[in-house]
Amino acid sequence: MSIEKFKRDTFEIFKAAVEAANPVKALKNSVKVSNGKIHVLGYQYNLNKYENIYVVGGGKASGLMAQTIEEILGGKITRGHVNVLKGTKRNYKTRVIELNEASHPIPDLQGLTGARKILETAMEAGERDLVISLISGGGSALITMPSEGVSLEDVKETTNLLLKAGATINELNSVRKHISQVKGGQLAKAAYPAEMLNLIVSDVVGDPLDVIASGPTSPDTTTFQEAKNVLLKYNLWSKVPKSVSKRIEMGVKGLIPETPKPGEKIFRRVRNIVIANNRLAVEAAAKKAEELGYNAAVLSCYIEGEARHVGTVIGAIALEINKYNSPFKKPVAVLGGGETTVTVKGKGKGGRNQELVLGAALKIKGEKNLAVASMGTDGIDGNSEAAGAIAHGETVERALEKGMNPVSYLEENDSYTFFKELGDLIVTGPTGTNVNDITCIIVGSTTQ
Amino acid sequence: MSIEKFKRDTFEIFKAAVEAANPVKALKNSVKVSNGKIHVLGYQYNLNKYENIYVVGGGKASGLMAQTIEEILGGKITRGHVNVLKGTKRNYKTRVIELNEASHPIPDLQGLTGARKILETAMEAGERDLVISLISGGGSALITMPSEGVSLEDVKETTNLLLKAGATINELNSVRKHISQVKGGQLAKAAYPAEMLNLIVSDVVGDPLDVIASGPTSPDTTTFQEAKNVLLKYNLWSKVPKSVSKRIEMGVKGLIPETPKPGEKIFRRVRNIVIANNRLAVEAAAKKAEELGYNAAVLSCYIEGEARHVGTVIGAIALEINKYNSPFKKPVAVLGGGETTVTVKGKGKGGRNQELVLGAALKIKGEKNLAVASMGTDGIDGNSEAAGAIAHGETVERALEKGMNPVSYLEENDSYTFFKELGDLIVTGPTGTNVNDITCIIVGSTTQ
Repeated sequence: MSIEKFKRDTFEIFKAAVEAANPVKALKNSVKVSNGKIHVLGYQYNLNKYENIYVVGGGKASGLMAQTIEEILGGKITRGHVNVLKGTKRNYKTRVIELNEASHPIPDLQGLTGARKILETAMEAGERDLVISLISGGGSALITMPSEGVSLEDVKETTNLLLKAGATINELNSVRKHISQVKGGQLAKAAYPAEMLNLIVSDVVGDPLDVIASGPTSPDTTTFQEAKNVLLKYNLWSKVPKSVSKRIEMGVKGLIPETPKPGEKIFRRVRNIVIANNRLAVEAAAKKAEELGYNAAVLSCYIEGEARHVGTVIGAIALEINKYNSPFKKPVAVLGGGETTVTVKGKGKGGRNQELVLGAALKIKGEKNLAVASMGTDGIDGNSEAAGAIAHGETVERALEKGMNPVSYLEENDSYTFFKELGDLIVTGPTGTNVNDITCIIVGSTTQ
Repeated sequence: MSIEKFKRDTFEIFKAAVEAANPVKALKNSVKVSNGKIHVLGYQYNLNKYENIYVVGGGKASGLMAQTIEEILGGKITRGHVNVLKGTKRNYKTRVIELNEASHPIPDLQGLTGARKILETAMEAGERDLVISLISGGGSALITMPSEGVSLEDVKETTNLLLKAGATINELNSVRKHISQVKGGQLAKAAYPAEMLNLIVSDVVGDPLDVIASGPTSPDTTTFQEAKNVLLKYNLWSKVPKSVSKRIEMGVKGLIPETPKPGEKIFRRVRNIVIANNRLAVEAAAKKAEELGYNAAVLSCYIEGEARHVGTVIGAIALEINKYNSPFKKPVAVLGGGETTVTVKGKGKGGRNQELVLGAALKIKGEKNLAVASMGTDGIDGNSEAAGAIAHGETVERALEKGMNPVSYLEENDSYTFFKELGDLIVTGPTGTNVNDITCIIVGSTTQ
């Protein structure tokens, strides 16, 4: 099969994946109104039951979600406040839901203003109201509201200290959830006793509800004591702002309430529904691959690890298929999903997907009739303008002919320049969604 | 399925793998004598045709191979010289083939004496003779014979300089093959015009014949000019011993013959047969898994990369199977083969297999009904006494209960201590073979 054919097919497969995860499409597929009821993937909400429907939320996809939920629910929405990325408000059309711009990844005061309105709206909602929240990746920064007495600067400083000390994401979150009014289930607590329906676009591998946007509507399993232990562990207890240690100490002593915990009654009124995630995209990709005449298999939607080494393993599986027609039968597209990481050591331009593909390229060099491609579903891979890249068995040889040593580009984290020179970048521009990455091994049939 | 049952099954699966790759068994399966002919996997050698049968070779498995080939060929062998690991000669019983001890990985003078006899025997063989060579991992050091005028010290110094400069294995070999009398097809050249049958136990991923034992019977694709370019590239041209640069310069000028190249007529008399490799072991493992009632699949025998990240991907595939019964149907054993690497940063004890399993353990934590295991087929993983380890969904929790943080053990490259404390090491002692590593994902059926 020709390289161009592989490229064409891969791009079609990836396009289907990104389209499936588009918030507009996903929301319209998941939420329908008929006979006076909202139908959400098998669940029903009787519109006559509610005095008010409020819409809140925030995240990179939440602007499109707000616009779409208005389309779906028509005039049923009483009021709404949703925080969107700075500079994007004009891209969305809403009548009832007020959009507020907020900065990311460092929260700003404008975002705080929006977050206050979101919290106030949730708190205003009563037993006969429905609160719909629209949550997507980036929501943690976009809906920031520090606890009383803690300033935005205090939160930033605490976060920076923990990151520098090498705290894990779970450790970081256990602290952040205890100095916030939103994170760790506190948005759900604010909405209680209203009924709450959370529509979520997941940007976290495996869809852990307590991690996506820092889990504003999901029970928090961490405690003030654990938050304190984390700060003690990294010798930061006396270094974080006084407002932070004071609040956490009060929490430890039981003087202020804990974040809501699993099993608490407020969660009986809460339903969290992931309407789009990596799996949705990867499965759409597999379906498209089958339409194009390939066997299709989903290897895993939990792929993580250092990008180049993940690429080596992906390349090893591609080799096995190509040489032994096993464990998947040719012609085949093997799809993977997840999100890898890059430990940056060089000064080049690139991203985790491009580096994964470069790692795979070295492994499949010299092979005929196969390709490996990977892209970020948001269309932006690392610090580059590309979404990802594609490599074939001839990629390494073509590079060497041009005087480019693939290993040197890998060492410099310069995968973007490498694939740009070869004309093998995947460029889409921002796609309007973010459900992690998608990787594809594609192997032609032996007879071709 | 209980942890103990998983352990038992995994150990049986691994045992079958190691047994299949045992040089004695592999040689007896591959080489048979009947009706005056040697039958080697479909090829025949008419014993009446030959005036003499000589046996040469070297490598970690070559002592057992020598003993076994004597058993198989009875009194047909005229003479033989095989180099074995220092201190192991007394473990093997041969009558006709003389075993010579040699050191590894740094060659010594005793090894040189053996290598000289090997070369002399090969050169003595004529058109009506058969030379059988027994090659296995470690053969590069065990059959060392520098080119005329180059001393053993000169070779060592050149190797060290290249390693320190960061040369790749291919670059290193292009130089070493041009200052040797054995490597890069030169043993085959010495044996010409005799017929040559090479029986190989492969310890290199993918079985590249020009890499196993530095390819003594395989065409060399590298040239004197390339060897010089490598030394120039790393600014070592004026730093390597004079004997080395002088020889390579003479080669570049065409004053001494090149190593034998692909297509040269000497290779028409040469047959290289891999009698045991990673795939043989992995396929035996798959067969045993099926006997134990599992579905079995070979994911790839080309697995390489940094061990912990490979473990993350293996864990991701295990998760996918456990949660979605796909892409392989439960109950299933998914086998992988290859050899990963560890970038050592800590001061702990461990090896690539144990680190791979620790990486996987973090990924599968909390899951029920599955395990990931990995071991070196030689029985020795890294700087530890264990061959490998096994992890389950409860491994991380069990460790945390004992106050052991898995991430810290990973950071310290202390996977051995981690699994020793949990009682989850795989300990076999030296197995007598080395065909890289074997990894196994095992997932129980949903109904159990």
